[in-house]
Amino acid sequence: MFIRHFGINSRGVFRRHYSQRASGNALLGFRTVAFVGVVGIASSYGTYQYLRSYPPMDVFPPKATTPLSDLSQSPVYASESTVQAAVREIRQLLRPDQTSVSDGELALHSDNSSNFHKPSEKERPDLVVYPESVEEVVSVVKICSKYRIPMVPYSGGTSIEGHFIPTRRGICIDVGRMNKVLELHEEDLDVVVQPGVGWQDLNAYLDEYGLMFGPDPGPGACIGGMVATNCSGTRATRYGTMKDNVIGLKVVLSDGTVIKTKNRPRKSSAGYNLTGLFVGSEGTLGIIVEATLKLAVQPENEVVAIVNFNKLSEAAQTVTELFRRGLPLNAVELMDDRQMRCFAEMGGSEGRKWSDRNLLLFKLGGSKNTVNDQIKIVKQICRKNGGFNMEVASDQGEKDEIWRARKVQLWTSIDWAQKMIPNAQAWPTDVAVPISKLPTVITETVNDIESNGLLTTVVGHVGDGNIHALVIFPPDKRAVAEKVVHNMVKRAIENEGTVSGEHGVGIGKREFLEQELGLDAVNTMRRLKLALDPHLLLNPDKIFQIDPHEMRIEN
Amino acid sequence: MFIRHFGINSRGVFRRHYSQRASGNALLGFRTVAFVGVVGIASSYGTYQYLRSYPPMDVFPPKATTPLSDLSQSPVYASESTVQAAVREIRQLLRPDQTSVSDGELALHSDNSSNFHKPSEKERPDLVVYPESVEEVVSVVKICSKYRIPMVPYSGGTSIEGHFIPTRRGICIDVGRMNKVLELHEEDLDVVVQPGVGWQDLNAYLDEYGLMFGPDPGPGACIGGMVATNCSGTRATRYGTMKDNVIGLKVVLSDGTVIKTKNRPRKSSAGYNLTGLFVGSEGTLGIIVEATLKLAVQPENEVVAIVNFNKLSEAAQTVTELFRRGLPLNAVELMDDRQMRCFAEMGGSEGRKWSDRNLLLFKLGGSKNTVNDQIKIVKQICRKNGGFNMEVASDQGEKDEIWRARKVQLWTSIDWAQKMIPNAQAWPTDVAVPISKLPTVITETVNDIESNGLLTTVVGHVGDGNIHALVIFPPDKRAVAEKVVHNMVKRAIENEGTVSGEHGVGIGKREFLEQELGLDAVNTMRRLKLALDPHLLLNPDKIFQIDPHEMRIEN
Repeated sequence: MFIRHFGINSRGVFRRHYSQRASGNALLGFRTVAFVGVVGIASSYGTYQYLRSYPPMDVFPPKATTPLSDLSQSPVYASESTVQAAVREIRQLLRPDQTSVSDGELALHSDNSSNFHKPSEKERPDLVVYPESVEEVVSVVKICSKYRIPMVPYSGGTSIEGHFIPTRRGICIDVGRMNKVLELHEEDLDVVVQPGVGWQDLNAYLDEYGLMFGPDPGPGACIGGMVATNCSGTRATRYGTMKDNVIGLKVVLSDGTVIKTKNRPRKSSAGYNLTGLFVGSEGTLGIIVEATLKLAVQPENEVVAIVNFNKLSEAAQTVTELFRRGLPLNAVELMDDRQMRCFAEMGGSEGRKWSDRNLLLFKLGGSKNTVNDQIKIVKQICRKNGGFNMEVASDQGEKDEIWRARKVQLWTSIDWAQKMIPNAQAWPTDVAVPISKLPTVITETVNDIESNGLLTTVVGHVGDGNIHALVIFPPDKRAVAEKVVHNMVKRAIENEGTVSGEHGVGIGKREFLEQELGLDAVNTMRRLKLALDPHLLLNPDKIFQIDPHEMRIEN
Repeated sequence: MFIRHFGINSRGVFRRHYSQRASGNALLGFRTVAFVGVVGIASSYGTYQYLRSYPPMDVFPPKATTPLSDLSQSPVYASESTVQAAVREIRQLLRPDQTSVSDGELALHSDNSSNFHKPSEKERPDLVVYPESVEEVVSVVKICSKYRIPMVPYSGGTSIEGHFIPTRRGICIDVGRMNKVLELHEEDLDVVVQPGVGWQDLNAYLDEYGLMFGPDPGPGACIGGMVATNCSGTRATRYGTMKDNVIGLKVVLSDGTVIKTKNRPRKSSAGYNLTGLFVGSEGTLGIIVEATLKLAVQPENEVVAIVNFNKLSEAAQTVTELFRRGLPLNAVELMDDRQMRCFAEMGGSEGRKWSDRNLLLFKLGGSKNTVNDQIKIVKQICRKNGGFNMEVASDQGEKDEIWRARKVQLWTSIDWAQKMIPNAQAWPTDVAVPISKLPTVITETVNDIESNGLLTTVVGHVGDGNIHALVIFPPDKRAVAEKVVHNMVKRAIENEGTVSGEHGVGIGKREFLEQELGLDAVNTMRRLKLALDPHLLLNPDKIFQIDPHEMRIEN
């Protein structure tokens, strides 16, 4: 009886598990069985039968959340030799050029230069795979699931909170070659794409149709990672973040099951919003293999306007009043006077002369008359709040020149930092707060950074209350930099804000997430993770702890 | 050893469970223990210890989904006498006027006149409670959780897919008295409200600030239920559905844990999008006790425009072309020629004469110039596609008169139905499809309904591809009505559509949800349900099956 039931479904797993854990009292019952004979077996079987009704009523904790303390042990992953067996299996499945173990590729898939949460030297994938179809992703996931091997999905590799550090080694699944636009539905204003499509390439493709995709994060980002981090960019004020622009997803779950989260209509109340759950889940719940995205029509006319302010609070007040008027601005960006000083010194954009005062940049779009009306109101409200040097650019060259400064802001700041401080490093991060809290949070942050002897430049998607303060520090001040970054995050939380407006949590902000939402909300997330990924295979250790002992790469 | 471990956490539950299930082999192990003595106990304990590590590696199915077949039995709820004990406990906690068992209240909390999925006579709550604070909700939930009593959250009671049928009896938690606006943040354009606030009352409150809340579902709907069904209405084209308008939620989970899903910034990438998961979860994952909502600024100028079309396809083509031009329309509604005939015969709105041809209704908003530009383009595209009788109303009285027709459409249709067919009944339902599929789906649906000898009127939030075909039938044709409703839902699915654009799934559309998204997606939803509500207490049987035997009210 015992054999029959365990034999079919659970025996293989059970045996593997047993062999992996030589010590511990976990298997006491089964080891005891060896001498208690048939009565003991009946007893264990009964318990097993009782518990196998899902959810096992008394063992499955009758709660709605999973505190870390409920996890009695570190996750158990495959041994080194099992991993090597799996690697061989995967290689039989794919062409030679679809896998790599070169040092360069392994390093590239563990870290990037903007990430300040560094992997250890041992934190490298065992293998990088480059699937070219959903079926190939599924095959790889099934092998990983069978052997309990961690998987880290990867697309553009531009995330900066340590999102793709292979903390438990395993297989990095790079979907970069799944980069096709599958279907364009021009009449319905949607498009179906693979996860390796870059947002810039997508917009280049859409240009001839007069269409565009709203979110515009950092250059190089691809749809898969953009979905995973719920990113946005300068246009979120008007077009929303990723979660507002994804209609539906195709996702490979931890055991290789493929689900479609929604059909193609823009509106649906058909069951749980699985789309919304996977957007922002940072690869911890499933691997995005297809996305249906909302498109927008390119604005008929669009102008770029810039205006200086002596005080940050004047700029912030201007933004508040503009939104309070209901003006549908296509973008509102702030660059603070430190950032502007940096442009004034370095030249931001092909020889243009920049004032070193706080700057608001606007994009205004619509019919000619609409744009003119908006310019009138923007001018009036800016002037009222002390704005000066207002310029409106409608010529494409001039518009591009101005906006390019915003786009190269990070690199200009880094160049400036290197000039100011030899070998300076620049730590980018983001928080978001209600718009009314912006002046306080920015001012206190800048004061904190500077009074700690470091430099900073601040830019913000202020229409969304989202700011990026770049912390610039000499290499020996890493600890101070970390402190002021942490202060900024805490300050955001104290001002009803969030630890990240668009970058995500990754490894870098896990502890702050608990401070922002409270342990119970994070325990709810952990519960969902365990439900969809019971063996904790998908991008382990990201967003929240899954290991009470924090044993990164211990297998 | 055995006693010590079971004693503290699990013993109470275990005993209750044992006493409820006198037969079955589930407890074989523990009953066997009685005669195997200490060795058997050690064996069971070892198994228990092994399995209690969460997730129990071999028993908790190592999958990402929960097919119905994994649930080996019907959910086990409290016995009648336990329920009565719980009712007494709840009554000690609340004032006498905060609970009811009157026949009228019990019936009101089981059904409404627009719902065609009728509860049986036994399907009534054991008790209706009217909590007035989050703490009171938590207290009631903790009692229900302790005794395993089903709970059905209730606010406006306007949902029509059998959403609040107490299929397992239990406690109906009516949050209607939690109806306060808690905080208005005018500068940040957000508001914090309790779940019993009606959307109409909210807008009345916001009016003096020149603000508004986007979603406008049927009259009487309250925020709690609106969140739960991810509803929308005529303004979704411009302002989005509930999921786009909820910034964060406070939710009471199945065990009484209270979580906050997000802080107040409009943008956040801080962990899983719990907000998005609870929006549209139909009371099956938690009880919404507070919501932070996005507000919009009332349009500076808004006009209402109407135009007739001889052919439905002409109207649909007009909508497609308008969106393709990127026009930000505040609303686009369709009423088909059957609906218009009904207005022509019944008088839709205080004496106005209506043509009996297909009608598009628009709301256009913005600055005066913007509106004028929009009118020009709308006129041009309508004319090109065969539109005639175009009227533009900017006077408030005239605008209200026209829009009122749209708002009373359902009642006018029902009056007309009663005139055409004695004792006619009218079954309202909704589906949504990509806009390009609208003409096919509407035409085929109307043909199907009429060729089956029934009557229909069609209205649609066509900007979102969302249509409502009212199926009008004599009482003896209930089965035919059901057939054509099902055909419509299937037709939507065949056209890449969804079983519901804004009403939700409830009891009424569960089987179709599986057809739309596939079993694996529904099994993923079931898995999430089990994770957050392991004893299946929250609004059982809605959205998907949780009982392989479908034993509604069996205790």
